Amino acid sequence: MAASASSSFTLSHQTILSHPKTTPATSIVVPVNSKVNGALLLKSRRRRVGGVGRVESRAAVVRAAAVEALETTEKDQVVEKSVNTIRFLAIDAVEKANSGHPGLPMGCAPMGHILYDEVMRYNPKNPYWFNRDRFVLSAGHGCMLQYALLHLAGYDSVTEEDLKTFRQWGSRIPGHPENFETPGVEVTTGPLGQGIANGVGLALAEKHLAARFNKPDAEIIDHYTYVILGDGCQMEGIAQEACSLAGHWGLGKLIAFYDDNHISIDGDTAIAFTESVDQRFEALGWHVIWVKNGNTGYDEIRAAVKEAQSVTDKPTLIKVTTTIGFGSPNKSNSYSVHGSALGAKEVEATRQNLGWPYEPFHVPEEVKKHWSRHTPEGASLEAEWDSKFAEYEKKYPAEAAELKSIITGELPAGWEKALPTYTPETPGDATRNLSQQCLNALAKVLPGLLGGSADLASSNMTLLKMFGDFQKDTPEERNVRFGVREHGMGAICNGIALHSPGFIPYCATFFVFTDYMRGAMRISALSEAGVIYVMTHDSIGLGEDGPTHQPIEHLASFRAMPNILMLRPADGNETAGAYKVAVENRKTPSILALSRQKLPNLPGTSIEGVEKGGYIITDNSSGNKPDVILIGTGSELEIAAKAGDELRKEGKSVRVVSFVSWELFDQQSDEYKESVLPAAVTARVSIEAGTTFGWQKIVGSKGKAIGIDKFGQSAPAGKIYKEYGITAEAVIEAAKSVC
Amino acid sequence: MAASASSSFTLSHQTILSHPKTTPATSIVVPVNSKVNGALLLKSRRRRVGGVGRVESRAAVVRAAAVEALETTEKDQVVEKSVNTIRFLAIDAVEKANSGHPGLPMGCAPMGHILYDEVMRYNPKNPYWFNRDRFVLSAGHGCMLQYALLHLAGYDSVTEEDLKTFRQWGSRIPGHPENFETPGVEVTTGPLGQGIANGVGLALAEKHLAARFNKPDAEIIDHYTYVILGDGCQMEGIAQEACSLAGHWGLGKLIAFYDDNHISIDGDTAIAFTESVDQRFEALGWHVIWVKNGNTGYDEIRAAVKEAQSVTDKPTLIKVTTTIGFGSPNKSNSYSVHGSALGAKEVEATRQNLGWPYEPFHVPEEVKKHWSRHTPEGASLEAEWDSKFAEYEKKYPAEAAELKSIITGELPAGWEKALPTYTPETPGDATRNLSQQCLNALAKVLPGLLGGSADLASSNMTLLKMFGDFQKDTPEERNVRFGVREHGMGAICNGIALHSPGFIPYCATFFVFTDYMRGAMRISALSEAGVIYVMTHDSIGLGEDGPTHQPIEHLASFRAMPNILMLRPADGNETAGAYKVAVENRKTPSILALSRQKLPNLPGTSIEGVEKGGYIITDNSSGNKPDVILIGTGSELEIAAKAGDELRKEGKSVRVVSFVSWELFDQQSDEYKESVLPAAVTARVSIEAGTTFGWQKIVGSKGKAIGIDKFGQSAPAGKIYKEYGITAEAVIEAAKSVC
Repeated sequence: MAASASSSFTLSHQTILSHPKTTPATSIVVPVNSKVNGALLLKSRRRRVGGVGRVESRAAVVRAAAVEALETTEKDQVVEKSVNTIRFLAIDAVEKANSGHPGLPMGCAPMGHILYDEVMRYNPKNPYWFNRDRFVLSAGHGCMLQYALLHLAGYDSVTEEDLKTFRQWGSRIPGHPENFETPGVEVTTGPLGQGIANGVGLALAEKHLAARFNKPDAEIIDHYTYVILGDGCQMEGIAQEACSLAGHWGLGKLIAFYDDNHISIDGDTAIAFTESVDQRFEALGWHVIWVKNGNTGYDEIRAAVKEAQSVTDKPTLIKVTTTIGFGSPNKSNSYSVHGSALGAKEVEATRQNLGWPYEPFHVPEEVKKHWSRHTPEGASLEAEWDSKFAEYEKKYPAEAAELKSIITGELPAGWEKALPTYTPETPGDATRNLSQQCLNALAKVLPGLLGGSADLASSNMTLLKMFGDFQKDTPEERNVRFGVREHGMGAICNGIALHSPGFIPYCATFFVFTDYMRGAMRISALSEAGVIYVMTHDSIGLGEDGPTHQPIEHLASFRAMPNILMLRPADGNETAGAYKVAVENRKTPSILALSRQKLPNLPGTSIEGVEKGGYIITDNSSGNKPDVILIGTGSELEIAAKAGDELRKEGKSVRVVSFVSWELFDQQSDEYKESVLPAAVTARVSIEAGTTFGWQKIVGSKGKAIGIDKFGQSAPAGKIYKEYGITAEAVIEAAKSVC
Repeated sequence: MAASASSSFTLSHQTILSHPKTTPATSIVVPVNSKVNGALLLKSRRRRVGGVGRVESRAAVVRAAAVEALETTEKDQVVEKSVNTIRFLAIDAVEKANSGHPGLPMGCAPMGHILYDEVMRYNPKNPYWFNRDRFVLSAGHGCMLQYALLHLAGYDSVTEEDLKTFRQWGSRIPGHPENFETPGVEVTTGPLGQGIANGVGLALAEKHLAARFNKPDAEIIDHYTYVILGDGCQMEGIAQEACSLAGHWGLGKLIAFYDDNHISIDGDTAIAFTESVDQRFEALGWHVIWVKNGNTGYDEIRAAVKEAQSVTDKPTLIKVTTTIGFGSPNKSNSYSVHGSALGAKEVEATRQNLGWPYEPFHVPEEVKKHWSRHTPEGASLEAEWDSKFAEYEKKYPAEAAELKSIITGELPAGWEKALPTYTPETPGDATRNLSQQCLNALAKVLPGLLGGSADLASSNMTLLKMFGDFQKDTPEERNVRFGVREHGMGAICNGIALHSPGFIPYCATFFVFTDYMRGAMRISALSEAGVIYVMTHDSIGLGEDGPTHQPIEHLASFRAMPNILMLRPADGNETAGAYKVAVENRKTPSILALSRQKLPNLPGTSIEGVEKGGYIITDNSSGNKPDVILIGTGSELEIAAKAGDELRKEGKSVRVVSFVSWELFDQQSDEYKESVLPAAVTARVSIEAGTTFGWQKIVGSKGKAIGIDKFGQSAPAGKIYKEYGITAEAVIEAAKSVC
């Protein structure tokens, strides 16, 4: 764990040189170690840096490197050239798009180079090789860094032609990293802080699988998760949440590079961000290393990675002090290089400064040659692993089958038979409890199911009884304790889901607190991460906790979100159906809105019905022409059913429809939809203990939507239902008024 | 700054006794210092505590207190009795409601007592007295603590009768603290982490006003903000965000008590929360004090407060180690006492254990007498301040007028005349730029307007040009730099808004990142905090940044939320109108969705139109019977207008309606609504670059809604608009299909 004395060192509070917040701009010489033309370029320009101390130490490193130059010239040259290739691919792509973020790739090119060229194990021709190291660019705006690296490494997803289409319609390399667009990109980042939290999820997945499947004679799971995050990520609360958990879990194979460049969009971070990040991460139980010269201190970076890998019981933060836009004589170290093209003039000046005589998008031959080894090496790595796994499979067939299911995402045949079914005679129960029955039934047949709650396990009913807690020393277990960290929880689950197709992570809190984690949930939807969100206490039905805890607008707000299934089951069969749908939809996340209160098992509900999204549970009409259609979801389906019974007693023909998932209903054929909601029947009443917003689509201009368009109240649930008019009487009255 | 050696001490890493994570339950004697019956009760019971070290030090303090007992017996007795009164009021109210959280009030009663009885300055008969100290219970579930304290202190809002209605329909003391229900409660808490962030806002407000208005001869603003937060709050990212800013700003009058009881809902916090909170807060620039014995160490608590008050350049965290449910022999120090009534048997056992012979809800006479002084003292405090202010007003009439406006919320007469207006000839501009014109115009006339962006000031266009940055050493300025901390930003603005009615805080980020701050925005809506949310880059119109940055479902998701105005202005006049509405609605927050891209000033738009929510901008029909009604919002109103022009050329009578705010339109009379959207005209087409979810209400079953029901793309904006069919051609085609 001792760091190389000259290049990196273990952080100690006393020795940190603090970033001076108000140092006025001074003119100093910044040595740029560019040996491209056989000469050390020394370029003088005005810039604000972290005081003479920082610059001196950087210069010292440069000199130290020069001493060793005799032996390492050729290697150094190609590294330097590779690093500048990365910088200019980013510069050129952003310039061509006239849009993008050149500053980060220019500053992070050295660490990027070392990671992809010297440290990481991957197979460029199979980006999905299971035992690859994972890389996450949490500072996703700097995506040209990753695209340049994928290009050099030989990934087919980023050709020279692709680089020229950056940020254009139909491009395979969009404005922020998107796993569903670019093979080689593991997760979707851009919204700050998500990536580091995804990284925690990826590292959790590795630690879990390694503990569960590795054998003393067969270490088949063994890979690292590397993350680059910036000042923006560091300020986000989600990053704190996830990193606190990473420290708690002791995720030793998580190594995060903090691009410490002191610049964010509004300028110097000193205007809003003066905490000691190093000390905070120590408080979180991380190992912290500071690389003072991230611009040219390659050996410092290498030593830091080595040290980080040697610390196996803690995640490591490598703070790498860099210059944003390194190499740009007039824009580096300023916000102006963060999010805009440099402009032709400054591109030219940067070419001059870094001694780069090439055309845009050019990759020098020696750089190409240097990187070309990754294709055969990657193939070897995978082949080696394949034979290792073949051996494992022979020795441990049962474990291998489970692991294979997680690797491939192929669900075990007949898994859905594990789901419980219910009859109207089964005693009623809260759907949160029924959910726990489903989770526990599924855990027996789905090897990739794991998850937990944000400190509400006993309220959300999410504990898997056959397993213990996933903890630092028991990582093979499957109950994850997220603490009160909803946003981090969601993003960690995205990381788990995207680690391997067969992982089915679930996470839980009160439905109203989706407000805390919506950023992560939207990324689930966008990045096709099939996370299951177990959201209990789904309405005023939670009672006394009052309006801060009672969701009103949440069902509507998720129905409006693309590629996410909003499911609100009414009873046992529907809860089982919701799980069937959620497990099957591996590229679409599902939200299950579940009741705190007890609900009866209703006649007519079914798993198959749920799969259609909306379906008839009872009907006494004929010819698809009921007098009135009553539509309910979740806990209010019971009310609709009751009102239906009453109206039938009065001689009406009434259809009662469960509308458990709007998205699934939308996917059905027109014929099916007409069979449930015939256009000719405009007498429709819906009831749901939430906003009526959106229901007009279902009940039509002549129908009535019963719901709640104001905040809730603190009182026993039954009382609120009555006072808010969420009653069978209200449905009956509305039905009579429309038919 | 030196702490009393025997009772509290400045934190040092070396001396912290860490909480043992896996100590098995051991049977030890816990001394309970109850002198009610003239005897020191020593009660033996099983509990898990932080090792013998902790217990010993607690016992030592108890012994130390006993030594001084001769001199302080009477005072000590009444304090002890008062503390137990608080405990039992909480126990009894939760018991009667059979719902609630007794654990926190029982553990925090000592610090609560000291705060309300010995430390805080307030006037119970005027909870809104301007210069009062503010108190926030961030761990809002423990609200019975605050209700008990308000009751003892003499607030009319919490009578004995009120205490008996806890968590019932129509009660003035709901299940979590709600400022709009209970005078004396400053903000609305319950969702964890919000309260501490509100506290940062309250303290910011004080620091700002003090710097701006205090004179060397007249310190008229001088109050503290006290917060109690628990382990749950500490885990939430929002707390980290807000506390990082509090340290950065050096909010010396913010004093937060961290109820360190090692228990959260899922059990011992050791299962998910093992970071060093103390070290983290030091990293954030806070002063940190540890009170080891929060259960009976009154002098420790007193000394800690004194020390905290003496540190004027940093906020202080007082970590107070307590026992949740203190006094309950069988449930204390366990999650079972967190969120459920104790039950009759355990209430009785607790009465025995703490020597409490009284009936439920009883306040002993000596306790009543002891607290009775707060009514006259509070009146004096306010009267003193009134005369101080009268003097100030004489000497500094201009400043006094400004301050008065902030204190009362009365807007300066004619303020709205400052809003700019535009004609179709005015060159087009992005509404984010027009927004900046409005903000800068309003800053000149609204003394309470202040705010900023989450590190996007230059993109959100939120800088007030006449002011500098609110910083530690320039707190009189009005541009607040929130860093990349959206959730914290929103909650801090809630605190500012609720500090004084005349504060008009605004905050900004990209519209899509409302996902990061929705928890705080919902609290704005619920707690009637008139924050202005300046949300730019409001659609696919932002272009290349791609789907992670392009809002789709966000307009709908806020239209579904109660008590929040979702405004999407189309041009200069509408942006001015949106600000007029936002400033006027002091009890309803507003969200302004603003374009990145340039938009023309359209004929027919007006401030008055915006105030109606929906209005006709052009119409060539007569008799309120157009052939078709085209409805647009924001950047798509231009498209609707263009389509209207084309259709008119083809001989159609076309009405073009701007639908800038659904909520405002809903508030209009039926006559007005009919005059804009006549029921007889079912040929309606809406266009909006967002989800169509909800639009069926406006366009009806026969109309068509043009929008985007999938995620966006990374490409130039114009290209995406075209590919996604958000065009005049699409409107024309749809119009022809419906009329």
